[in-house]
Amino acid sequence: MADAARLPAHTARLLARLRERPVRVHAITNAAAQVLTANLLLAAGAIPSLTHAADEVEAFAARADALLVNLGTLDPERREAMPRAIAAAKRAGRVVVLDPVKVDASPPRRDFARALLEKRPDILRCNAGEFAALFGREPDDEALAEIARATGAMVALTGEIDRITDGARFFRIANGHPMMTRTTAMGCAGTALVAALSAIEPDRALAAACALLAIGVAGEIAAQTAPGIGTYPLHVLDALDALDAGSLEERGRVV
Amino acid sequence: MADAARLPAHTARLLARLRERPVRVHAITNAAAQVLTANLLLAAGAIPSLTHAADEVEAFAARADALLVNLGTLDPERREAMPRAIAAAKRAGRVVVLDPVKVDASPPRRDFARALLEKRPDILRCNAGEFAALFGREPDDEALAEIARATGAMVALTGEIDRITDGARFFRIANGHPMMTRTTAMGCAGTALVAALSAIEPDRALAAACALLAIGVAGEIAAQTAPGIGTYPLHVLDALDALDAGSLEERGRVV
Amino acid sequence: MADAARLPAHTARLLARLRERPVRVHAITNAAAQVLTANLLLAAGAIPSLTHAADEVEAFAARADALLVNLGTLDPERREAMPRAIAAAKRAGRVVVLDPVKVDASPPRRDFARALLEKRPDILRCNAGEFAALFGREPDDEALAEIARATGAMVALTGEIDRITDGARFFRIANGHPMMTRTTAMGCAGTALVAALSAIEPDRALAAACALLAIGVAGEIAAQTAPGIGTYPLHVLDALDALDAGSLEERGRVV
Repeated sequence: MADAARLPAHTARLLARLRERPVRVHAITNAAAQVLTANLLLAAGAIPSLTHAADEVEAFAARADALLVNLGTLDPERREAMPRAIAAAKRAGRVVVLDPVKVDASPPRRDFARALLEKRPDILRCNAGEFAALFGREPDDEALAEIARATGAMVALTGEIDRITDGARFFRIANGHPMMTRTTAMGCAGTALVAALSAIEPDRALAAACALLAIGVAGEIAAQTAPGIGTYPLHVLDALDALDAGSLEERGRVV
Repeated sequence: MADAARLPAHTARLLARLRERPVRVHAITNAAAQVLTANLLLAAGAIPSLTHAADEVEAFAARADALLVNLGTLDPERREAMPRAIAAAKRAGRVVVLDPVKVDASPPRRDFARALLEKRPDILRCNAGEFAALFGREPDDEALAEIARATGAMVALTGEIDRITDGARFFRIANGHPMMTRTTAMGCAGTALVAALSAIEPDRALAAACALLAIGVAGEIAAQTAPGIGTYPLHVLDALDALDAGSLEERGRVV
Repeated sequence: MADAARLPAHTARLLARLRERPVRVHAITNAAAQVLTANLLLAAGAIPSLTHAADEVEAFAARADALLVNLGTLDPERREAMPRAIAAAKRAGRVVVLDPVKVDASPPRRDFARALLEKRPDILRCNAGEFAALFGREPDDEALAEIARATGAMVALTGEIDRITDGARFFRIANGHPMMTRTTAMGCAGTALVAALSAIEPDRALAAACALLAIGVAGEIAAQTAPGIGTYPLHVLDALDALDAGSLEERGRVV
């Protein structure tokens, strides 16, 4: 599947498979993202769990198919839980996705994210500012590829054009809508879909690209159906629930 | 009120009474359930409070009319707060409802739930998997009745058919809709209505049955009015707010 | 701007300015208010951040333009974070808004709020019960003015008629709708708009009055457009997003 043109059709297949055989995603995520993340996973057909109690996360991570670790709320309990959950997920052979939200705003958070990167998550999702804070360089293609090779993680850099690389191949997705950035935790919740699809598609750069394509297209559809910014995130869930090959083929912009 | 046929009419009466004389429900509940729980209580006419700070919960539990303890987020603060809140509520003569969410996924949580059961909550709400994890046996009617007698708690086992027993009588409710399971924390929020109605109906098995009937019917109505899964939980609140004897009589399925 | 008649037009100007030049608001707020607060700020054009990790809040508070401290969830982490965030915000010359939610329900919370007041927040938002618990007297105009002078904070007392004073001048706003009190955290989220407007209007009593006017009018509009209580808070966001001079002039009730 090196052919970018096939990405929309493959995304439709993965979403269909997810609805048929639900996967479990355990998400240690920030307080503002928990409800939207859980409901987005449910809308896509996955089964969420969210606990961040340190002595419980190992059991939850090991029984899930994928683990999402989002640094948006970095209280002591989550800080203790995150490395334990990653270790348990790795031991059980689960995919691990790291979302270092706002590491550019807080030096302790940046240091914590770097320490988690050494535990070798499978996928790193971040934006340009977060990438720069983590690695001290601008996220041009060369930097993305080098970091992917150095960390062993797929790098999914989100922005106007999402770029996903495993260090060799690149996927570029030009979907999405400005209303998505006017909704708290929409990016965080979208990364949970990256985790869900990574649990059923072994080519993890492809899985991440398909997930970001799906979220971007759902965000565009919701911008047309939602009466306003308030209900917009709920319409993203509706659009994701209804997403099919037709709308993905029609709207998907793999560039 | 042993007559199952009168359950819908009694539910309507309890809901009407709740709207006239609001009761306070203090809910120590999981992070994903807090907003929906509070808004569901408000939609039903009750007054929610949610704090889980250990040194505050006694004051909040004692001034409330009912206490709901939901184990979905079991961080150290809540773990310390829960037994203190239960003790304060019992001292003040308040009804206590325990919802041991996902005890089947985490041994520490199961052990914690067992310890809370010894504090003699008035109502235990769980599903089949949670019941099996807690008591080591399948939740057939005999097991439910025995556990109700042994623990002194009404047992409200939710599922396709909700079964509520005090150890002798059984109520069976066949309402609800599959979309309810595709919304995070809908079951948790519904249990808050069990707590609210238990504060105004001294027959607590009856109170629990009426609450589950109301939630189930509201969930069915919302499945018809909501445009999609995203806004579905908000339409459950609308339906609950508007629920009356007519719709309860028409749709209630006491089996 | 002592002329109450000009308040609606000035509110429109402040909202327009906020949409043109977004300000950052860091909110340490309660668990039930986080999502609504963030989305209300985004709907108004501001940029929210929410972290309450004690070793991160100083960086977040210092880079924000305003800090909101809401006592609704008073766990140990937030309790440690709040004074640190206030000190960092004051050092950086940022405006600080204190919302002592439900201090009337919990003596430890009341004491904590009093200690925070000594750190001299710029604006204190509370209701009648909270004011009485904090200061031991009923919130008549004389008491409000005295407390404003004694604490150095603008006092914004919300209720059927919101009263805002700097100790000398009074603004009185008679907008709002009963549905606002049937939505969890609507008042908490509204106070975040007080913080946002205070960051762009140096006359802070005026800023607070404009914010409460905007929220009240948005709440009235939403009561007309929302199909029910469930989606009501989201319609408040829509109304706030669309609020303009015309609707503010038409509906604003400065009394």
